[in-house]
Amino acid sequence: MLFGALEAGGTKMVCAVGRADGTIIDQISIPTRTPEETIPEIIAYFKRKDIKALGIGAFGPVNVNKGTKQYGYILDTPKLAWKYFDLLGTIQKELNIPIGLDTDVNGSCLGELTFGSAKGLNNVVYITIGTGVGVGIAVNGKLVHGMLHPEAGHILLRKEEQDDFEGNCPYHKCCLEGLAAGPAIERRYGKKAVELKDKKEVWELESDYIAQAIMTYILTVSPQRIILGGGVMHQEQLFSLIRKKVLNLLAGYIKTPELESMDTYIVPSVLNDNQGIMGCIQLAVEELKELGKL
Amino acid sequence: MLFGALEAGGTKMVCAVGRADGTIIDQISIPTRTPEETIPEIIAYFKRKDIKALGIGAFGPVNVNKGTKQYGYILDTPKLAWKYFDLLGTIQKELNIPIGLDTDVNGSCLGELTFGSAKGLNNVVYITIGTGVGVGIAVNGKLVHGMLHPEAGHILLRKEEQDDFEGNCPYHKCCLEGLAAGPAIERRYGKKAVELKDKKEVWELESDYIAQAIMTYILTVSPQRIILGGGVMHQEQLFSLIRKKVLNLLAGYIKTPELESMDTYIVPSVLNDNQGIMGCIQLAVEELKELGKL
Repeated sequence: MLFGALEAGGTKMVCAVGRADGTIIDQISIPTRTPEETIPEIIAYFKRKDIKALGIGAFGPVNVNKGTKQYGYILDTPKLAWKYFDLLGTIQKELNIPIGLDTDVNGSCLGELTFGSAKGLNNVVYITIGTGVGVGIAVNGKLVHGMLHPEAGHILLRKEEQDDFEGNCPYHKCCLEGLAAGPAIERRYGKKAVELKDKKEVWELESDYIAQAIMTYILTVSPQRIILGGGVMHQEQLFSLIRKKVLNLLAGYIKTPELESMDTYIVPSVLNDNQGIMGCIQLAVEELKELGKL
Repeated sequence: MLFGALEAGGTKMVCAVGRADGTIIDQISIPTRTPEETIPEIIAYFKRKDIKALGIGAFGPVNVNKGTKQYGYILDTPKLAWKYFDLLGTIQKELNIPIGLDTDVNGSCLGELTFGSAKGLNNVVYITIGTGVGVGIAVNGKLVHGMLHPEAGHILLRKEEQDDFEGNCPYHKCCLEGLAAGPAIERRYGKKAVELKDKKEVWELESDYIAQAIMTYILTVSPQRIILGGGVMHQEQLFSLIRKKVLNLLAGYIKTPELESMDTYIVPSVLNDNQGIMGCIQLAVEELKELGKL
């Protein structure tokens, strides 16, 4: 049985077909333009495939609350062409198959829970640090939905003393994204992160901010594991710095077996940047299960 | 049918008997000394009552993960006599009835979900600000357990410019508890919070810190409502300040119907400080239900 997966991002739409075990057997990428241009291409791709259900991981904000009127709509996004666009409904009308939906980062978190670094766990935080910072969270085995969905890339941080960069989040200046996403690094140092690999102070500061955020996530949702992905985290030297700094910040306040083994507590993804699309496959699988069709 | 409720706090043990609708029909308070002195009194109280199950809301850290070896144990607490004490097991051996257990603040959160300001909701944050700061969290209708349980009173905050108090959390100095709990207010101004009622700057600063924390909780677990309780929150002027400042901090990044109606989004408890003990009754009820005995 085949499943469709759509990772709907702000710059590209990744469409794939795969199996319930996470195997991806076909994949294309379509640039994200307006819905009028992009959606027909997506529909045409999936119509040619014999898929039984589709899973969508969408850029946010997106309404993920089933049973509400705007379920599946993109909400108040700065990408104006997509503002209040009925993403799920428009695709469902054409494909006429069950569709599961969540945020892109919750999708990645589900990918990790099902196939990756968090297999078998119930409480997990997945953080992607790239052009922005996205955070997917699972609690008691379920992806977190509430009033909306987690937007924890925007939590406020303390500016480190040595940092005179003002922060570049247009909403909050010095939130995690404003201080630690790729564009913040680039503006602070005038070079791309990848060109700064050997500059020790860059990764000291970057790991300070990421550790601050992780401390907050630990104290709030008590994850059993934290998975870091995204372009910035390809700088592997970050992991040991982050692990050390998280323990320093917690200062012994919480004692658990997990925190005694930081190398398995704060980890990279093992899915080769496929966690998002594999999570979408799982969203499709879970939707079919929920309908009693699997 | 009667249920027992035990709010196990660091200074007192509140024991009560009530009905499934939350009615409390009897209640006593026992000072918390050592387990050897205190536990027999608790057991004697409940043995005299015809209760079918007991719910315990315990001071933390406490193991709340069913199925683990130390489920129901108090963990590494500064109250040395209680360190690694088998709270649940010791009481269960004597009473021989089903016992539900959670942290005191998760218990209060459950009280609000079942009987109080959060009735009918699924995602709720309950914050108590008194001698410490405790945070109970429900996600998808379930209290949050993970590696441990939420300890979100200790998230790091940004020091406000006008504040030269160093913070008095022994672990983190300037976390929420270290900056905003009752003892922090008392040490900063040399007077108890209740004596500072008319000092506008006290509540401006206090609401700055509480708003910072609430912003983080909103972005992380996306609660549908936030309930504030505890001694410090008896200063009712705080509510309107906090509501305004949370919106300022979010800066329009999240738009939801809930945030358009802040008076019903950030609210006081309506249970007259009985949310904790009523939550314990509900813990007992849920334990019986889980066992198929109700």
